[in-house]
Amino acid sequence: MTVFQGLITAGRTVWDMTVIHESRRARLAALLAEHDVDAMLVTRGVNVRYLTGLVSSNAAVLVRGDASAVLATDSRYIETARRVCSGIEVIEQRDVAGGLVKMAERPGIEAHDMSVARYRRLGGEPTPVDGIVELLRVVKDESEIEALRTACDLTDRAFADVVATIAPGMTEKRIARALESRMVELGADKPAFDSVVASGPNGAVPHHSPSDRPIERGDLVTMDFGALYDGYHADMTRTVAVGTVSGWQRELYDLVREAQRAGRRALAPGAGTEEVDAAARGLITDAGYGEHFGHGLGHGVGLELHEDPFLSPSGAGRLEDRVPITVEPGVYLPGRGGVRIEDTLVTRADGPELLTRTTKELLVL
Amino acid sequence: MTVFQGLITAGRTVWDMTVIHESRRARLAALLAEHDVDAMLVTRGVNVRYLTGLVSSNAAVLVRGDASAVLATDSRYIETARRVCSGIEVIEQRDVAGGLVKMAERPGIEAHDMSVARYRRLGGEPTPVDGIVELLRVVKDESEIEALRTACDLTDRAFADVVATIAPGMTEKRIARALESRMVELGADKPAFDSVVASGPNGAVPHHSPSDRPIERGDLVTMDFGALYDGYHADMTRTVAVGTVSGWQRELYDLVREAQRAGRRALAPGAGTEEVDAAARGLITDAGYGEHFGHGLGHGVGLELHEDPFLSPSGAGRLEDRVPITVEPGVYLPGRGGVRIEDTLVTRADGPELLTRTTKELLVL
Repeated sequence: MTVFQGLITAGRTVWDMTVIHESRRARLAALLAEHDVDAMLVTRGVNVRYLTGLVSSNAAVLVRGDASAVLATDSRYIETARRVCSGIEVIEQRDVAGGLVKMAERPGIEAHDMSVARYRRLGGEPTPVDGIVELLRVVKDESEIEALRTACDLTDRAFADVVATIAPGMTEKRIARALESRMVELGADKPAFDSVVASGPNGAVPHHSPSDRPIERGDLVTMDFGALYDGYHADMTRTVAVGTVSGWQRELYDLVREAQRAGRRALAPGAGTEEVDAAARGLITDAGYGEHFGHGLGHGVGLELHEDPFLSPSGAGRLEDRVPITVEPGVYLPGRGGVRIEDTLVTRADGPELLTRTTKELLVL
Repeated sequence: MTVFQGLITAGRTVWDMTVIHESRRARLAALLAEHDVDAMLVTRGVNVRYLTGLVSSNAAVLVRGDASAVLATDSRYIETARRVCSGIEVIEQRDVAGGLVKMAERPGIEAHDMSVARYRRLGGEPTPVDGIVELLRVVKDESEIEALRTACDLTDRAFADVVATIAPGMTEKRIARALESRMVELGADKPAFDSVVASGPNGAVPHHSPSDRPIERGDLVTMDFGALYDGYHADMTRTVAVGTVSGWQRELYDLVREAQRAGRRALAPGAGTEEVDAAARGLITDAGYGEHFGHGLGHGVGLELHEDPFLSPSGAGRLEDRVPITVEPGVYLPGRGGVRIEDTLVTRADGPELLTRTTKELLVL
C-alpha cells in the first residue's frame, strides 16, 4: 500500500484525510472480485469510520467495484456526514442497510458484524463476507501510527503523574479514576477502555475491576489502562510494588519482565504470531508458571482495542510491517497476586518502535 | 414481576442480587416454550450481566426451561465468574457459545445479537429468537432504578459545578472534559456516552462532537451528557445561553421547553409510545418547526443508553409501570443553532418520577 506523506505545519503533520479515505476505498474495491460480489455493504461502525471518516452509531457505506461509494445515515448525523465525507454520495435514510443493499446486484455483507435478525430483514440473501475491511486495517498508514503515538504518550504522562501519588490507603478505584482523569486533562478523548487496577491478591485476576480495596504496604499493584486519541487506542500495563518487595514478588516480576523483553524482540515483519507468543511463553513455562499465564501474548490495536493480529499459541499468521501490537505476558497466582507488563509497539523492518515508553524497572513506591 | 424489597443498612439499600438474578432467569425460563425452544443461549454481554451479574467481554449463559443455567467464560474472567455467579454452573471455555449450544436439544440464540458468521460456525441451526431478554429488561426493579437515580444525581451535580465556569473563550471540548472529569470525581464509573457540547451554529447538529470552537457571547450551548453508575446510564441535555439572549433564541427555547413539559406529562403506564411523542411533537409542528425536529422524542435507558421502549411517531407499543425513559425534544436550525432539553424519568402509576433534577429555566451565563 501507499505510504501517505504528511505535510508538516507548525511542527505537526497534517494528513489529507480525503486522499487517505479514497485510497482505503480503492483497496477495498480491488478485493471485491475474489469474494464474488460487485459491491460491499459496510455496516460496522468502526469500518464505516475507516472508509469515510464519519463517526456514527447508525451509518453504512456501499463501496462498488469501481471504488465509487454511497453513504447512508439518519437525520442526527446527516449534516456531519455531508461535511466529513468527500468524494462519495451521501443520502439520508433511517434504515441505512436496507436502502443501500438494493443499489447493487451481488452485494456482500459483513458476516462477522451483521446480526442474524438484520440479515433476514434485508432479504435477497446477500453474500456473507468475513472481515474484509478488518484485513485492510491490519497494516496502518503513518497518520494512524501518529495518532497511536499520541495516545501512548498521553498514557505515559498520566502514569508518571499518578504513580507519584500512590500510597497505602488509596483504593483501587481512586487510582483508576486518577489515571483516567489525568489522561483526559492531558488531551485524551477519553480512556480507551475500562482501566484495570488490581492490588494484592486481586492481581491474580487478569481483568479485575477496580474495587474499594485500599492499597496495603507489601502489595503488588497492576495497572492496565490507556488513552483514546482521535479514535486510536493505547494499551499499557505496569505492575508496581508498594513499600517493600518480597522474594517471590521480585522473582515473579523479573520473570515476566524477561518474558516481555523476549516477546518484544521477536516482533518483526515476517515472524509467525505463534512464534512471538512462544518466545515469551517459553520462559514462563520453563520457570514452572506456564499454567498461570492463561491468555495470549498480545493483540493488534488501532481503531479497536483488540484487533488482528493476535499473538497466541494457536495463531497461524505472520506479522507484516507497520502493525501496532501489544506484548503483555502475565503470571497470576490465585490467592497471592500477579504481575503483568504490557507495551504497545509497532512492527518495523529495522526493529519494533516502542510507543509506550514508561520504564519497566520495578518501581517500589 | 416481583418487586424486590431491599434491606436498608446505614442509609443505603442493600439488594440481594443473588435472588434478583435467580428471579430474572426464572422469568426468562417461563418464556421459552412460546418460542419453541428448550433453552436460550444468551451471548449478548449486557444480557449476560443482567442474568448473572458477570461483566465480561467473552461470556455466555445457557438458561434452560427449568431455570437452571450454565455460564461459560475464558480464563481472564473465570475467577470473577466463580465469585459473582451464584446458583449456576460455571465452566471455563474460550469458545463460550460453541460449548453451551450442545447442552440443549432445541436451543434458541439471540438473533438480534449473534452475527451471521458466528451462527454459521455454531452449526445445527439453533432457533433465532429476537430480543427476549431485552423484553424482560424493559420494566426495571427498584435496585435498577436506584442505580439510575444515583447516576442522574451525579449528572446533576457535575452540571451544577461546571456550568458555573462556562464563559466566552472556553472551547466545546474543554466543557465536555470538565463535565466528564467532574462526574468521575463525584463517583461515576465513567461517562455514560460521548458527551455532546454544541455551541452557536454547531447546535444545529443533534449529535455534534465537541470541537475546538471557543464559546462566544450570544451563543446557545447544548450539553448532552450523563454518568454511568453500576452499569446504569443517565442521560440529560440542557441548553444554556452565554451573555445575552436574542428574540429567536428565547422563542425557540420556550417552545422546546413547553414541548418537553407536554411530553413528560404524557408519560404514564398504559400510554401509547406514539401518543407521548405526539404530545410534544404537536407543539413543535404547530409552531412551524416540525421539519427541524428529526429524531424520536425519547428512549428507554438502563444497562444500555438506548433501549426499549422508543418514543417516536412510528411507535406502536404501550408504556408500562417502572420504565426509565428520556424525554428530549429538540429544534435544529441549519446555520443558526439549536435547542434540546432532555430529562431521564421513570414511569409511575402516580405520575413520572423525575431523575434529572437540574432546572429547565433558561440559564443565561
